[in-house]
Amino acid sequence: MTDNKDELDRIEGGAPLDAPRIVRGQGVTAPLGFRAAGLAAGIKKSGKQDLALVFNEGPEYAAAGVFTRNQVKAAPVLWSKQVLTTGRLRAVILNSGGANACTGPGGFQDAHQTAEAVAETLSNWGTETGAVEVAVCSTGLIGDRLPMDKVLNGVTEIVHEMGGGLSGGTDAAHAIMTTDTVPKQVALHHPQGWNVGGMGKGAGMMAPSLATMLVVLTTDAVASAGQLDTALRNAAGKTFDRLDIDGSTSTNDTVLLLSSGASGIPVDQADLDAAVYAVCDDLAAQMQADAEGVTKRVVITVTGAVTEDDAVTVARAVARDSLVKTAMFGSDPNWGRVLAAVGISPVTVNPDIISVSFNGQAVCRNGYGAEGARDVDLSGTDIDVIVDLGLGDATGWVRTTDLSHAYVEENSAYSS
Amino acid sequence: MTDNKDELDRIEGGAPLDAPRIVRGQGVTAPLGFRAAGLAAGIKKSGKQDLALVFNEGPEYAAAGVFTRNQVKAAPVLWSKQVLTTGRLRAVILNSGGANACTGPGGFQDAHQTAEAVAETLSNWGTETGAVEVAVCSTGLIGDRLPMDKVLNGVTEIVHEMGGGLSGGTDAAHAIMTTDTVPKQVALHHPQGWNVGGMGKGAGMMAPSLATMLVVLTTDAVASAGQLDTALRNAAGKTFDRLDIDGSTSTNDTVLLLSSGASGIPVDQADLDAAVYAVCDDLAAQMQADAEGVTKRVVITVTGAVTEDDAVTVARAVARDSLVKTAMFGSDPNWGRVLAAVGISPVTVNPDIISVSFNGQAVCRNGYGAEGARDVDLSGTDIDVIVDLGLGDATGWVRTTDLSHAYVEENSAYSS
Repeated sequence: MTDNKDELDRIEGGAPLDAPRIVRGQGVTAPLGFRAAGLAAGIKKSGKQDLALVFNEGPEYAAAGVFTRNQVKAAPVLWSKQVLTTGRLRAVILNSGGANACTGPGGFQDAHQTAEAVAETLSNWGTETGAVEVAVCSTGLIGDRLPMDKVLNGVTEIVHEMGGGLSGGTDAAHAIMTTDTVPKQVALHHPQGWNVGGMGKGAGMMAPSLATMLVVLTTDAVASAGQLDTALRNAAGKTFDRLDIDGSTSTNDTVLLLSSGASGIPVDQADLDAAVYAVCDDLAAQMQADAEGVTKRVVITVTGAVTEDDAVTVARAVARDSLVKTAMFGSDPNWGRVLAAVGISPVTVNPDIISVSFNGQAVCRNGYGAEGARDVDLSGTDIDVIVDLGLGDATGWVRTTDLSHAYVEENSAYSS
Repeated sequence: MTDNKDELDRIEGGAPLDAPRIVRGQGVTAPLGFRAAGLAAGIKKSGKQDLALVFNEGPEYAAAGVFTRNQVKAAPVLWSKQVLTTGRLRAVILNSGGANACTGPGGFQDAHQTAEAVAETLSNWGTETGAVEVAVCSTGLIGDRLPMDKVLNGVTEIVHEMGGGLSGGTDAAHAIMTTDTVPKQVALHHPQGWNVGGMGKGAGMMAPSLATMLVVLTTDAVASAGQLDTALRNAAGKTFDRLDIDGSTSTNDTVLLLSSGASGIPVDQADLDAAVYAVCDDLAAQMQADAEGVTKRVVITVTGAVTEDDAVTVARAVARDSLVKTAMFGSDPNWGRVLAAVGISPVTVNPDIISVSFNGQAVCRNGYGAEGARDVDLSGTDIDVIVDLGLGDATGWVRTTDLSHAYVEENSAYSS
């Protein structure tokens, strides 16, 4: 179901007719040439939806992906990295209810067998497909084998259930949820006549929560695998890679971008970069807002760094600091904890020229307290922290959340 | 007051007469030649004790120190590092109720003025002392200037209150507490006739909680500043530096070791190393047991590493992982989170040969789940995690705690 109110708000908000339009509530089936489905295959004990399929009808099949940097990689990550070396995908099968990580050679065989089953069913359905054209993504508890009988029955069923239109995409977005409380979808309609859509679950990538981040992006623009790869790496580096909920990095994080070329419209790299970035940025914001136990949305921006990498490194050190995050939960303008976190980051700083503001109000100037610093009101949901290192011209940011009782509650009772 | 029961238990426990005896409840005044005091100077709004003095009566005054690695260093750290370049100290003045960190040039003048006041009062009291012989330590909220009128009045009073015997040391141990719930003291009596005593507060060093760690150690052995420095660096590196409560590092962490030489007994480096290590190890265990919000005492041991540094690095990555720590709080044997934390550490590992045990029971063998892994009972207070990387012969460990509701509660309402 489209979230029509949100869509109308955005349209009525009055973007110029020649600007790209962002629409929440539409997802991977917004671009032409994609079908999707989601259903309950019985992998989750709760009986909720747990299997999703995204299918590229073509006429083109270019694809790109980025994966977790964790050295411990789940079986589906190993499988999908391997098949993506061809730069080509026809389908992505995703399950929640089990990560298929740390499951040994048997787990890898399960991922392979799942891809084979998708390929065989699609072929029987009339679309000749090989297993090497099928990416596999999983999310859930680490360490258990998947119930393959249920997965394989689900695969047969889901291929037949694939609908066109938006509802299939929304079903898929629901089926990949674990601790997410809402599905996450967004689409971008470009005035040139091509589109990008995406769905995601979880809260992170590379630096983020163990609540695996899975994202599938689709476009009907005509674009090569190389173009997709460039656009995806640029966008992921500035969005998902800068979303840091608790510093933990999943064994399963995966972001895929598939192109059907169905619009028939070739796309400039710059236009594609901007569109993919916009979709990823919106999905990252949706993940931040729905992170485990979140009560505050916090953006840490570091200015005055020598390089952008330095700025992001310092911002990440602040974003990961448990004492900063608990202070945010308490709406406490405890800026000294921000300085302490900056000071232990691997970037060389000069404490005597650091300035900090909370929600636009100075709390620290040149290394010591600004007047009224203890009275800054942080009771709202959004907190902007700006740290000026005073060393150079580079800027970087990281999105994070507070560390709340709900986070502890949710994560102390996950597997049991 | 001496904790006589504890002392008697240990003595009756029957250490051989020629082995060093460890006695809890005795502290910095256990060695000959040291006096100490603690009192309420009015720095803390609560009216609790907040000022402590440790005084070396000589005849020798050798000293060594290790300090926070945070680039943002509190004024008293800057002062004490400077005076310790002489390798000589007559006194240490410590306050709780304010960190005197991020307080600018005025804050440094406050630390200097405090040392001057201690020196002047000691000189008037009959012991000629210079400010460069006085170290200063502070702990409390970052960012506010100290109430210097109260500090200076307190300094005059505390010099006159210095008593001999154990009670002065215990008063001092009380006066440096912030979020500590119990004072932390220990003494070692060496059969050769010399002694080491120590007191500490907080929960960490270099890698540890922002709840500043302050430790003062004393000995009446005859030892040079160089000997003290060697013993202190060796001990701190294996004890306080391996205590990691939340990965945050205070601006104020300080560990000092003072020798009076009052026993008249010269000491071998190896004996001194062992004694200082034993005292530091006991204080570190006391800090772990009293860490903010602790409900579990967790030791992460990494074996089979190529180097000891690698082992400690991996152990620290696991010890800092919020998802591992919340699982421990929930008594949940979620070993997959341990593997994910190992996999994102900067040490290169081979996931397929990693094995993990919880409290001696195998939960993961060669990268995947051992039978019964989900049923391991972690309901007790102590949890031993052993991670075998299978790469080499080196071992390292880190002490940590769980991440509990109480931690969030305590740290979300500290400055306000």
